[in-house]
Amino acid sequence: MADDRSTRGAEILRQIHSDWGTPNVLGPLEELVPDLKVIVRDFAFGEIYARPALDLKSRQLATVAALAAMHNAPLELKAHLFGALKLGWKKEELIEVLLQIALYAGFPATISALTIAKEVFAEYDARNTAAKQVP
Amino acid sequence: MADDRSTRGAEILRQIHSDWGTPNVLGPLEELVPDLKVIVRDFAFGEIYARPALDLKSRQLATVAALAAMHNAPLELKAHLFGALKLGWKKEELIEVLLQIALYAGFPATISALTIAKEVFAEYDARNTAAKQVP
Amino acid sequence: MADDRSTRGAEILRQIHSDWGTPNVLGPLEELVPDLKVIVRDFAFGEIYARPALDLKSRQLATVAALAAMHNAPLELKAHLFGALKLGWKKEELIEVLLQIALYAGFPATISALTIAKEVFAEYDARNTAAKQVP
Amino acid sequence: MADDRSTRGAEILRQIHSDWGTPNVLGPLEELVPDLKVIVRDFAFGEIYARPALDLKSRQLATVAALAAMHNAPLELKAHLFGALKLGWKKEELIEVLLQIALYAGFPATISALTIAKEVFAEYDARNTAAKQVP
Amino acid sequence: MADDRSTRGAEILRQIHSDWGTPNVLGPLEELVPDLKVIVRDFAFGEIYARPALDLKSRQLATVAALAAMHNAPLELKAHLFGALKLGWKKEELIEVLLQIALYAGFPATISALTIAKEVFAEYDARNTAAKQVP
Amino acid sequence: MADDRSTRGAEILRQIHSDWGTPNVLGPLEELVPDLKVIVRDFAFGEIYARPALDLKSRQLATVAALAAMHNAPLELKAHLFGALKLGWKKEELIEVLLQIALYAGFPATISALTIAKEVFAEYDARNTAAKQVP
Repeated sequence: MADDRSTRGAEILRQIHSDWGTPNVLGPLEELVPDLKVIVRDFAFGEIYARPALDLKSRQLATVAALAAMHNAPLELKAHLFGALKLGWKKEELIEVLLQIALYAGFPATISALTIAKEVFAEYDARNTAAKQVP
Repeated sequence: MADDRSTRGAEILRQIHSDWGTPNVLGPLEELVPDLKVIVRDFAFGEIYARPALDLKSRQLATVAALAAMHNAPLELKAHLFGALKLGWKKEELIEVLLQIALYAGFPATISALTIAKEVFAEYDARNTAAKQVP
Repeated sequence: MADDRSTRGAEILRQIHSDWGTPNVLGPLEELVPDLKVIVRDFAFGEIYARPALDLKSRQLATVAALAAMHNAPLELKAHLFGALKLGWKKEELIEVLLQIALYAGFPATISALTIAKEVFAEYDARNTAAKQVP
Repeated sequence: MADDRSTRGAEILRQIHSDWGTPNVLGPLEELVPDLKVIVRDFAFGEIYARPALDLKSRQLATVAALAAMHNAPLELKAHLFGALKLGWKKEELIEVLLQIALYAGFPATISALTIAKEVFAEYDARNTAAKQVP
Repeated sequence: MADDRSTRGAEILRQIHSDWGTPNVLGPLEELVPDLKVIVRDFAFGEIYARPALDLKSRQLATVAALAAMHNAPLELKAHLFGALKLGWKKEELIEVLLQIALYAGFPATISALTIAKEVFAEYDARNTAAKQVP
Repeated sequence: MADDRSTRGAEILRQIHSDWGTPNVLGPLEELVPDLKVIVRDFAFGEIYARPALDLKSRQLATVAALAAMHNAPLELKAHLFGALKLGWKKEELIEVLLQIALYAGFPATISALTIAKEVFAEYDARNTAAKQVP
């Protein structure tokens, strides 16, 4: 019988991460620490993100703000900016969140985060353009 | 003629900060650095929060997440948790945001933030109860 | 049937935390966020600390070093310094770990951590002296 | 024969710390870790601050800026703000340094630092007033 | 009529940033967030750096110390080390500031900052040599 | 007469750093700041690591945990993971320490540290394999 946490976690990961674009943060560690992927899926997404009292779109905004303010996790910020777009946040809205971070964590945190956002938005637009051209 | 930034900043501060509860973070510094209150009102609220591309309720969630993750600004977190309640976030939703921070900034950040939230919620409930009892 | 994680987590908590001394970090949050205690017991202690590849005494040293270096979690550092003594680290050894942190996180981190250690050691000695006087 | 580092360190400490006001950061740790005071005097002040290529007044400004930006060492910041006044920085100049920190570390860092500065300046003025009244 | 903040900010930027060398930190973000350059010029330089109570050379030392201690903004540290040289700080003095940071933020912060300073100094010397060879 | 600190520091460095593998963190700074290497050897290793009350293997675990939790010193973490292997910590044990860091500093800190550990382990295995093939 499947663990409920695992099922829920996998489902939430599907909702957050696009099937393209999102960097595979844990992929390179799969052989060295096979349990890590399971822990992140089951605990982070299956136990925490899965809690019903807050919707996933709001959770994603909180994660983007937290990672931008911490200013030391570029890969995770990139992955969650993709997730934020996928869950319906607009590019203009995400830019505002990252600008606002300057007030609490300083301008260098904002500048780093916006530089990552620029990459994410460019990849996102390129994919969308490509997707629309498929006949 | 009043500076537009000042007017907008003051208006946003009114929307975020309840007239009770919110700690007056800048009050004690008013005599030493009179410009600080002006800078925060005009720049932080009049120039950044006032930008139209993101609604104030979402901005407040981002601020709460950022301050909880940074884990070194208890006074500001307290003030913005009051603001988050005032702008319509439910207590249960804010608890979720703070729990989620554990994934990115560790459990001590979450525990500190929830301890502050507990104080804020208690003061908020006490005031609301008192307000309802006024005939 | 009891969840294995919960049983293991509770057992490890018993090994780390003395029945006196250790501050009850999560106690004040029990009413507001009842799940937090469960999450910490089941995930932090039942899933992570319980992994067999590293002994508990070494894990405790790593936690003390991490918390001292992060320099923003005095309550958790206090609790884990108690745990470190309980698991067999000597006071002199813990002092060395905290001194060494100065090289990586600066002297203020070391000074804060040693100030907390001083409190922990005093409480620990007072209890041990009291315990020995029981006829 | 006295260690040169020790002599130099003690001399620099005399120049930085006023004989009143400055909190005795290391005092409470003297019994637990007697070597700490020696290490700080000999290494921090006797080996680093004593290097001739930068004057002590500029060093003090750098320390105040670093501690304010790190935003987790209130005791050390307090001690070094006293030192900065003693070495000739004016109150208005120190306020400017702390305001500027907001750009790099966010407003909460600035607000904390200014709150500490307010205390330091008040104690400093009280002492100076008292000193002048001595006939 | 030009905004005074903008004029002052632009003038201060001219004084800090050499016309060569200084990395254009905000350049890559100009298309995505055109307002950012304006905000940084008008607020950071036109409102904060422009305040008269502290000279620009001292401000630059504070910024270098803060960024080195925060240890997460290599691009901004590089830009402000160029600025520090332009405003008259000697290479030997800047090395001292960065060494001193080890006491408060640990040796890794100092090592990162000195590695950036090495690059800055090399580029600075190369340019100066080239400039002198122009007949 | 050689300084005792220098002799002890050099001896400890020999014990921690393998003669291959360990990145030469200070090497590139040797010409710019010749004293830095001396300071690190004499103070960090000759005065702190050399203190007899804690064995070198435990010290190395504390350093790895501290650097992983701080999450901003990849080069130093790499060097000390090599040192940890050299001093007898097993790869599986180090993986556990880095996983545990997630509880205190968040998953991004753990993921960064494990990514560095993966590199270290691969280089270590390659060297050991090569060494065994020498007839």
